[in-house]
Amino acid sequence: MEPKAKQKALRLLTNGMYVLTARSGEKFGAATVTWVSQVSFKPPLLMAALRKDGSVFQCLADSGVGVLHVLASDQKDIAQKFFAPTKSENDLLNGEPFVRAKNSAPILTNLPAYIECSVVDLNERLGDHALVILEVTNCAFLREVEPLTVTDSPWEYGG
Amino acid sequence: MEPKAKQKALRLLTNGMYVLTARSGEKFGAATVTWVSQVSFKPPLLMAALRKDGSVFQCLADSGVGVLHVLASDQKDIAQKFFAPTKSENDLLNGEPFVRAKNSAPILTNLPAYIECSVVDLNERLGDHALVILEVTNCAFLREVEPLTVTDSPWEYGG
Repeated sequence: MEPKAKQKALRLLTNGMYVLTARSGEKFGAATVTWVSQVSFKPPLLMAALRKDGSVFQCLADSGVGVLHVLASDQKDIAQKFFAPTKSENDLLNGEPFVRAKNSAPILTNLPAYIECSVVDLNERLGDHALVILEVTNCAFLREVEPLTVTDSPWEYGG
Repeated sequence: MEPKAKQKALRLLTNGMYVLTARSGEKFGAATVTWVSQVSFKPPLLMAALRKDGSVFQCLADSGVGVLHVLASDQKDIAQKFFAPTKSENDLLNGEPFVRAKNSAPILTNLPAYIECSVVDLNERLGDHALVILEVTNCAFLREVEPLTVTDSPWEYGG
């Protein structure tokens, strides 16, 4: 397989950009993620492919719950904050304010929509990312936005 | 969970639009699909969530191979053709010309990029769609395009 053709073809796949958060006891996990899709209507399920060494995956695996946040197209600065390792101080998560969701995971209050989820399946054996299947348990839609996509960002993740 | 908030939040997830094809003996499967994402770099893996009663899922499950095609933003008419049941006649698949891929699945020659794949995992028990994990075996990038996304189409699939 020609590596350049592979990279160019795979980078034509369209993905959004999200911040996924989770919490296990006093440990927080939060990361900007892109490999996400709905995968079922009934029950409503999402798939997220996550770095196995990341704090979000660890906290999701431990606690079984998380929150997926939609980023607006003008929130690249917030996306950038969650590329860094997770840090909680002064009631901020990587510098962003949060509250506790019904499921106890952190909700980032500056983001325009979020989806509370429970882990229903977790598969680490297929590739270099863990595949996590999440059932939607609660949603909030706070304001109309254009969602941030990988195409509209300065970043790439795929290929 | 408030149904309207759920629908509005889930429809902020960003997805592309693709045509997925497969073949089992003389039976063809082809459908426009949106719930697709890369899920691993090494090996390169994709996830597709597919209707369990569809011809593509049946042919993929039988043959173990398929081809995912990227649609260009000006190819909504081709996307529309593959909402209909799969029909092969006069060397056309739903009216679109095709050739046989290395893996023997049909390649639609009007589409700007495609990814040949082999099924590495298949899970029908999680929701109302089957989750198929595909390993990328060959790619072709034929021309630069803006890929078609659900947002830029007249359709919705999610919520």
